[in-house]
Amino acid sequence: MTRISFDEMKATIKQAFIIAGMPDDKADICARVHTESSRDGVYSHGLNRVERYVDYLGKGWVDPHAEPTLDTNLGAMEVYNGNMGPGILNALFAMNRATEIAEKNGLGLVSLNNTTHWMRGGAYGWLAAEKGFIGICWTNTESCMPAWGATSGGIGNNPFIMAVPRKEGHIVLDMAMSQYSYGKLQVTRLKNQKLPYPGGFDHNGNLSDDPGAIEETRRVLPIGFWKGSGFAILLDIISSLLSGGLTTAAIDKHDKGSCGSCCQVFIAINPLKINTQEFIDKVLNETIAQIKGGVPVKEKGDIYYPGENSLRTRKENTELGIQVDDGVWAKVKELAGKS
Amino acid sequence: MTRISFDEMKATIKQAFIIAGMPDDKADICARVHTESSRDGVYSHGLNRVERYVDYLGKGWVDPHAEPTLDTNLGAMEVYNGNMGPGILNALFAMNRATEIAEKNGLGLVSLNNTTHWMRGGAYGWLAAEKGFIGICWTNTESCMPAWGATSGGIGNNPFIMAVPRKEGHIVLDMAMSQYSYGKLQVTRLKNQKLPYPGGFDHNGNLSDDPGAIEETRRVLPIGFWKGSGFAILLDIISSLLSGGLTTAAIDKHDKGSCGSCCQVFIAINPLKINTQEFIDKVLNETIAQIKGGVPVKEKGDIYYPGENSLRTRKENTELGIQVDDGVWAKVKELAGKS
Repeated sequence: MTRISFDEMKATIKQAFIIAGMPDDKADICARVHTESSRDGVYSHGLNRVERYVDYLGKGWVDPHAEPTLDTNLGAMEVYNGNMGPGILNALFAMNRATEIAEKNGLGLVSLNNTTHWMRGGAYGWLAAEKGFIGICWTNTESCMPAWGATSGGIGNNPFIMAVPRKEGHIVLDMAMSQYSYGKLQVTRLKNQKLPYPGGFDHNGNLSDDPGAIEETRRVLPIGFWKGSGFAILLDIISSLLSGGLTTAAIDKHDKGSCGSCCQVFIAINPLKINTQEFIDKVLNETIAQIKGGVPVKEKGDIYYPGENSLRTRKENTELGIQVDDGVWAKVKELAGKS
Repeated sequence: MTRISFDEMKATIKQAFIIAGMPDDKADICARVHTESSRDGVYSHGLNRVERYVDYLGKGWVDPHAEPTLDTNLGAMEVYNGNMGPGILNALFAMNRATEIAEKNGLGLVSLNNTTHWMRGGAYGWLAAEKGFIGICWTNTESCMPAWGATSGGIGNNPFIMAVPRKEGHIVLDMAMSQYSYGKLQVTRLKNQKLPYPGGFDHNGNLSDDPGAIEETRRVLPIGFWKGSGFAILLDIISSLLSGGLTTAAIDKHDKGSCGSCCQVFIAINPLKINTQEFIDKVLNETIAQIKGGVPVKEKGDIYYPGENSLRTRKENTELGIQVDDGVWAKVKELAGKS
């Protein structure tokens, strides 16, 4: 495990994207978002995802030149076709546009059809919060999880994000519908460890904390059992109906890689249209005080609010350099022509 | 266990509410919603909740005459003060108003501050769907669940609802943030049964399926462990910021009963502003076909979509009469002066 500076990582990823066919300005933004994800500890969708993204560009599953085009304008709600452009750029555009609508009206909703993988969903929540807006967004995906009651895949592990701006550190929830990602199962198995809590079912149909057993059945656990299964289904249907785009069932048949031609929803709300800053501060501070004032599970243990750990990791990785897996870093340097 | 007809139950509840001080027309609507909840199998917030609601009216924690008043009008978004009126009536008003806004603009958001317990949150999702709208709503509540990392209560078991209209049966997710309600823990304990899946922590800090052990620690499990804890926190903060009303932390100090002076958010979207009915049907049918086409856990077992079981219970209770606990039914008849 090595640590790399933000600027070096970003420049290297950018070069890899340019070699893969992205225009300079677009490669720059995508490289920044990948680097920020690694910096914040979301390694899976940061540096670690660059090789696969370059592969998608090579296969034509992402059009590096495409830009979103307006399908429908309903005032507070706008629908765009993502034209299979870079998912990060489409999503940044959509959340930015939602905040522009909300700046005027208090509330803005922008949906995307025919877009591609947005990488770290939390990025767009942080973006909204950074601009002073409440942000809510989600995406649908291909299926990779059984619906409750089934042993075979059928529903998507659709991420859902809610973000609230706060000067001392934004409050950001970024969660997918499965208890653990396949990446987490793999990493845990390779360390010969058990999961901290059950994460799926084994071949006997029992709840299991053995990552290898769950990888074999592919019966990953939806959060809250039947509840997360239902939530995944509704996020999928609503993202399709709000954008006129493909459902999980249709993405499965589309075969353009993970999230190829998926749908996304971005909601922004301007809290200052309803409240004074003083009231907002009171709401946030009394809530965080109540959470942190609980009796910790471990003596002197910490109780975190959503997003707090990302900020801690961000601080550490900014000061010391961003942690990278040496093999992954070597591969990305190779893609950037630097090996 | 006895079965009572819809009309008899509704008339009895209505009489109890009138005796408790509600005007006839308001008692009629509230009695209908309580009866519909029992009819759909949500007994906890149907007939079983009438006695407690009458108690709240007696204590002045709900003002039976109050109506919502407009605080802020931002076009697609409106904020109302619930004036501590009946939570059911305020919530029906708010979701109906959201659909009126969405009828024009495609999207409507109505929030309520200073409202009271809405009983079954799903009622407002079903309402939106019945009118042909996608509905999303949630409420905050007093705290009754530890935040992740804590052993003491601090966050609310805030229900979250998503509903999509479908001619063959609406698709409705109605979930609270704890894996099981305290009511479910009690019922399971009284039957000397275990929970089907772990529902909280015991005194040793281990995950447990023993309802009594969880009732003792009050460490009920958020859905998805840390994820549901974070989701509860964000639902609370956003409902407060969207309505200018009280947070969970503030409701805890307010002391006007469960959900006294809580905040609620109602979003309605008109899917026909974006799609043809043909496209909508395709989205819904291909998704339900994919879910139901999975390999069931039990041979010949069923895989349900969200809301399907409510419809099955509704059908059965409509045909055979609504199941009631004899003691609860006797008590409500007494409150209605019929004992």
